[in-house]
Amino acid sequence: MLAASNNRSALAGRPAYDCGMFAVIFSNARTDNDPEGYGAMATRMEALAATQPGYVGFESARNPDGTGIAVSYWETEADIEAWKTNAEHLLAQQHGQTDWYHRYTTHVAEISRSYSFPT
Amino acid sequence: MLAASNNRSALAGRPAYDCGMFAVIFSNARTDNDPEGYGAMATRMEALAATQPGYVGFESARNPDGTGIAVSYWETEADIEAWKTNAEHLLAQQHGQTDWYHRYTTHVAEISRSYSFPT
Repeated sequence: MLAASNNRSALAGRPAYDCGMFAVIFSNARTDNDPEGYGAMATRMEALAATQPGYVGFESARNPDGTGIAVSYWETEADIEAWKTNAEHLLAQQHGQTDWYHRYTTHVAEISRSYSFPT
Repeated sequence: MLAASNNRSALAGRPAYDCGMFAVIFSNARTDNDPEGYGAMATRMEALAATQPGYVGFESARNPDGTGIAVSYWETEADIEAWKTNAEHLLAQQHGQTDWYHRYTTHVAEISRSYSFPT
């Protein structure tokens, strides 16, 4: 996945105390399969997520060994559930299990406090 | 920072429903300063965190452009607060602001549900 610098501004513009905002932490290990198809899917999913109700932002990083972490931010848990069951996203999730990931873990979490540097 | 494969087992061994576990999402952008010193600090902080009460696990990833995400997992918010104010960790945080990070954002969040593949 790509580091979405365009979304950092959305996060940076939020108040320091984000009580009630939700994060989806997607920790994963990529296979070597179909890197072009994977890249296209990741770009498409990031763009599609950004059009969904309650979307706040997205960021991701990947290590040279194929492990990675992606975090998306949402206004409510209902927004997260709606995105999870989006038809095109469901297809991508199926490909994820058959082709693109050795393993992944997803945590849904409610943010209680946040702080940044520079403040 | 390093991808901590030794901690994945701690996460993998937890129940699928992790209600009450907490995550600290540390999103950051590295400077080019002192890569050896940074690497030594990151390794030391990861090892020190693992000895703290309530520590559950740690994982991280970094992009070639220097942006990265690290997530640590803890039993309680009090454990997170204790780690944040650990004396050696405070020194590392000071170096982080003066030397190692252009910017960072930290979110403390309570995990409400989790799921994994393979299940």
